[in-house]
Amino acid sequence: MKPVATDSQNMRVADIKIELAAGEAGREMHQLIAELYPICRSITGDGLRDTLRRIGQQIPLKVYEVASGTPVFDWTVPQEWNIRDAYIKDASGKRVVDFKRSNLHVVNYSVPVQRTMSLEELKPHLFTLPDHPDWIPYRTSYYKESWGFCLSQRQLAELAAGEYEVSIDSSLQDGHLTYGECYLPGETSDEVLFSSHVCHPSLCNDNLSGVSLAVFLAKYLQSRPHRYSYRFLFAPATIGAITWLAKNERQTARIKHGLILTCVGDAGRMTYKKSRRGTAEVDRAVAHVLKHGGDHETLEFSPWGYDERQFCSPGFNLPVGCLMRTPNGRFPEYHTSADNLEFVRPEHLEDSYRKCLGVVDILENNRVYLNQNPKCEPRLGKRGLYGGLGSKAQVERHELALLWVLNFSDGEHDLLEIAEKSGLEFSTIRQAADALCQHQLLELRSN
Amino acid sequence: MKPVATDSQNMRVADIKIELAAGEAGREMHQLIAELYPICRSITGDGLRDTLRRIGQQIPLKVYEVASGTPVFDWTVPQEWNIRDAYIKDASGKRVVDFKRSNLHVVNYSVPVQRTMSLEELKPHLFTLPDHPDWIPYRTSYYKESWGFCLSQRQLAELAAGEYEVSIDSSLQDGHLTYGECYLPGETSDEVLFSSHVCHPSLCNDNLSGVSLAVFLAKYLQSRPHRYSYRFLFAPATIGAITWLAKNERQTARIKHGLILTCVGDAGRMTYKKSRRGTAEVDRAVAHVLKHGGDHETLEFSPWGYDERQFCSPGFNLPVGCLMRTPNGRFPEYHTSADNLEFVRPEHLEDSYRKCLGVVDILENNRVYLNQNPKCEPRLGKRGLYGGLGSKAQVERHELALLWVLNFSDGEHDLLEIAEKSGLEFSTIRQAADALCQHQLLELRSN
Amino acid sequence: MKPVATDSQNMRVADIKIELAAGEAGREMHQLIAELYPICRSITGDGLRDTLRRIGQQIPLKVYEVASGTPVFDWTVPQEWNIRDAYIKDASGKRVVDFKRSNLHVVNYSVPVQRTMSLEELKPHLFTLPDHPDWIPYRTSYYKESWGFCLSQRQLAELAAGEYEVSIDSSLQDGHLTYGECYLPGETSDEVLFSSHVCHPSLCNDNLSGVSLAVFLAKYLQSRPHRYSYRFLFAPATIGAITWLAKNERQTARIKHGLILTCVGDAGRMTYKKSRRGTAEVDRAVAHVLKHGGDHETLEFSPWGYDERQFCSPGFNLPVGCLMRTPNGRFPEYHTSADNLEFVRPEHLEDSYRKCLGVVDILENNRVYLNQNPKCEPRLGKRGLYGGLGSKAQVERHELALLWVLNFSDGEHDLLEIAEKSGLEFSTIRQAADALCQHQLLELRSN
Repeated sequence: MKPVATDSQNMRVADIKIELAAGEAGREMHQLIAELYPICRSITGDGLRDTLRRIGQQIPLKVYEVASGTPVFDWTVPQEWNIRDAYIKDASGKRVVDFKRSNLHVVNYSVPVQRTMSLEELKPHLFTLPDHPDWIPYRTSYYKESWGFCLSQRQLAELAAGEYEVSIDSSLQDGHLTYGECYLPGETSDEVLFSSHVCHPSLCNDNLSGVSLAVFLAKYLQSRPHRYSYRFLFAPATIGAITWLAKNERQTARIKHGLILTCVGDAGRMTYKKSRRGTAEVDRAVAHVLKHGGDHETLEFSPWGYDERQFCSPGFNLPVGCLMRTPNGRFPEYHTSADNLEFVRPEHLEDSYRKCLGVVDILENNRVYLNQNPKCEPRLGKRGLYGGLGSKAQVERHELALLWVLNFSDGEHDLLEIAEKSGLEFSTIRQAADALCQHQLLELRSN
Repeated sequence: MKPVATDSQNMRVADIKIELAAGEAGREMHQLIAELYPICRSITGDGLRDTLRRIGQQIPLKVYEVASGTPVFDWTVPQEWNIRDAYIKDASGKRVVDFKRSNLHVVNYSVPVQRTMSLEELKPHLFTLPDHPDWIPYRTSYYKESWGFCLSQRQLAELAAGEYEVSIDSSLQDGHLTYGECYLPGETSDEVLFSSHVCHPSLCNDNLSGVSLAVFLAKYLQSRPHRYSYRFLFAPATIGAITWLAKNERQTARIKHGLILTCVGDAGRMTYKKSRRGTAEVDRAVAHVLKHGGDHETLEFSPWGYDERQFCSPGFNLPVGCLMRTPNGRFPEYHTSADNLEFVRPEHLEDSYRKCLGVVDILENNRVYLNQNPKCEPRLGKRGLYGGLGSKAQVERHELALLWVLNFSDGEHDLLEIAEKSGLEFSTIRQAADALCQHQLLELRSN
Repeated sequence: MKPVATDSQNMRVADIKIELAAGEAGREMHQLIAELYPICRSITGDGLRDTLRRIGQQIPLKVYEVASGTPVFDWTVPQEWNIRDAYIKDASGKRVVDFKRSNLHVVNYSVPVQRTMSLEELKPHLFTLPDHPDWIPYRTSYYKESWGFCLSQRQLAELAAGEYEVSIDSSLQDGHLTYGECYLPGETSDEVLFSSHVCHPSLCNDNLSGVSLAVFLAKYLQSRPHRYSYRFLFAPATIGAITWLAKNERQTARIKHGLILTCVGDAGRMTYKKSRRGTAEVDRAVAHVLKHGGDHETLEFSPWGYDERQFCSPGFNLPVGCLMRTPNGRFPEYHTSADNLEFVRPEHLEDSYRKCLGVVDILENNRVYLNQNPKCEPRLGKRGLYGGLGSKAQVERHELALLWVLNFSDGEHDLLEIAEKSGLEFSTIRQAADALCQHQLLELRSN
């Protein structure tokens, strides 16, 4: 069944059909994660800039700098943090904790320090995970000036009493908050937003996996025509999203659908947290893809989690959900050094990617049609619409899909609703709609 | 409790109360099936005419003839098919397949053929059921000119190589499509439609059972006053329903409730497939009857099955459901010679008949009343409404029903909704409404 | 967290916060039951007057007398019944059944009798409970003139054949029906109604428990400011409620929420029977309190039970539910002498009382607020709203509550809906709203 567009209106349907990419996407996504992994990111600073620069090598990215002190709604863009080196040296001069080995060793946003102090004095500045003695925790102190080191429980246990040299070669001063946008214009100015926070240092699932997935979605869409315009936002969590919303307040009405992408590389089942609206088209689209895609979980909206908190604040109430595999806080590796390159796997990244493309396919093709022969069934046989290629089951599904699309294309049901009513996959329903359009039995509802 | 009508409006309620017929209905229904069984019906032709003539001996039936070539929506009335004889003779002249033994032996709508051919040439025209070696399948070829024979797998196995004489003495030429209607006018021109397809040859459950049930419902209603007008349609499946809708397009607005009757004689539990509307009054009425009538299944509407496909096409969207026992395709005997006089039993026909009368009872009596004493309960005791005849449980149910009817007769709830809310049977609620009307505590809402 | 009112509008919220009373309430409630227990009440008469007089010693009570013969909707206020003594004496002059031992011994509303009769003549006037041979049943004959005695099955078994002197020193003559009202004016004339029937003689759960609970709720509310006006109605069942509604028909629109209180002292779980509306605010409030308060059951409205039958008759349809522990008829002691001072326990009365106060707390404080910073989250940290006193879990719940209240204070959700959405207790949500008001992040919606 090869749909041939019959007029300019229906052509859009045929043209933007998404063909799922085969094979290598997961491996390439993992490679990008590996490239970005060593960089010490934060909510501001050069690590963030370097990350955006590398993303810009993959997809067209416009980078924005917003000055420290800029008011953004109830918040203020913070001072910029940069770090060059940090360590704890023992009496022998040996670096017993070394930023160069893992950027998680320094509490993110630590103010500079250069002192010698006893272990007792030092201890209030040391953070470990006693339950996971080999793992380094991830800690931040964005809005309270302080400093500290994160280390494994084993490292801590090996520290003998005595004097230690403590050095954090960082700076916290007026500068900028940086974020990047990849905008892919489509046929309409209505937008689909994908947003991934890009402020975490060497942590893979949260959220280099989301960043990488967004990059590869953009790469895919960049090469194909699409109805919607797509906006990929790479910004620091919370303050970045708030800054973006403050700068783009008037244009948010264009956002018709949106997804936060995070924690999409682990082995867990897919999890979808609905938008605040709960029944937005994106909520229905993701629900459909997950229902036909194996084990999964759906969560109602709640006002904490990732940047859906901001996009779904009541003054915006945008239709933005959050797509994950295992949600934040539900895997022990979360916010520790164990969220590393082994924790995220190409096959899971690939699966998340394919599901995202499935969502995009639905959003692009989910239209309302009008049956042009609404009184009794049209005679499909004389048009050669019965039968067709494929297995017996495929043919039967296609024939059923034709009848479902005809019966419910009354101007009240979009294709996704028809797919849900019929229990058939969206792609089967869409192909049926294409075939019926080709025979003038269906027309896109103009509205 | 003997309701006495107190004014012309309320009288209707009392008068048209349906008394369920006792006993012999099932056996008589089976006898009619047996009478019609041998006739070779199709979607046109003399077998169909003969069937309608015999139905007309039971109930008043108006028969319509629509000429071949008449356009009916997207379809055209086909040429008329008639058959006199058909056989396959072996070299010895013996009829090894003989239309006179079973009219299923010939593919329905086979074009005439008179040839001698080898078994190898013949085989593409032979159809069997290898999984059921003694059964003859039922096959049609309405819209593609061809011919063929259906036979049991055992018959096929016994055919030796060699030459066979093949004869189908049929005709396919301009003529008419025939259908019949029994119309029973009621107090209003609002109609209840019962439709049964009448095109299948020697097959009992699908659909002589539905035909026979419709005939006996008509016989029952014919002898009693009723509020609604009733229309019983006996037409060939698909093309017959489409032809009827094309001829009666303007009058379909009169159809307030409708049921397709088919497969109502087997031993399976009752199955109801809802109308496209899903919450039409007929859907609620059937649901109530089945809920209080033992094991059953309810199916959502889907755009395939029987003639609800046409009545529920989006340009009509009539409140027409489909009442069955075991649905089409879910019993192995479906569309085979095993769907015979033994497969349908009087007791199952009787049960289906009683349930249909229960549905009719609800449709006839499901009205909206207004409590004439809506502020606080009226004093029922002083009117002798408490107590009454029957077992303690019956009296209690009656008293509860009085309170339920009074409380919810606010103009917003019909009796069926009150029955559902209360968990009581519709008949109990209706009797309570009758009693309250009798004491001027209730009045029919005029609208 | 001590909310400080910041303007007159928000002050109301802080001022009327209900502090749950500790400890002694259950014991005091039981003492009041014990005081009222010996009085022989009926739907009219001096026992009812004496009961109301004693209630009036606890709370301000206005007592109304309505003359016999007064028409009240479909009913008429009955003659007044009073009783001084009653007994059955055996041949030796011994009182074998004695009203002075239990007022249940006389069928309530028995006409006077003074006769000597044989046991056989007497028996049709004797009522027992064969299944509970030590218990005396409770019987009435309000609307049919008759007389009778209730006694235990054991007492009956001991009656020898012979002559008995039967005396009922009662009177049934024109007089009055008496009811009492405690009205506690609040900031608005919108009312919360609590109603308890006060016509049952020596029966504790049904309904001295409800009467006592209402008295203690009134005592509690009397000493505190409150937004709503509260009306506590103590009237005989059915005829009392009907009389009150007839006398106050025009003012019923003021009743915004209401509860019938009955059977609130037994050991069973809490049961709530919803108002006829089913989703009234009081229904949601009780559901919330019970959900967070252990095992319970919720019943849909039905038009029998207690005086919700009258308040929820379709001409009024007031938002009045019925709060119970074990419902009428579901405990064997119901309407027998076993519904005594041991059957109701202080701890269960206390629990019912606390749950009622929880409902009052919700009704008083369930408001709709508007987030004053609806675009993105406000920065709670800089206002010291994160952290706070209490256990880690308490602090976390408070922080979540802040986010939930902010996100859903869009003018469409009241605090109770936010509590339900979040899964948090109403009190946690209310405290969060208080804290946010204090920081001008939230304002009461004016309307």
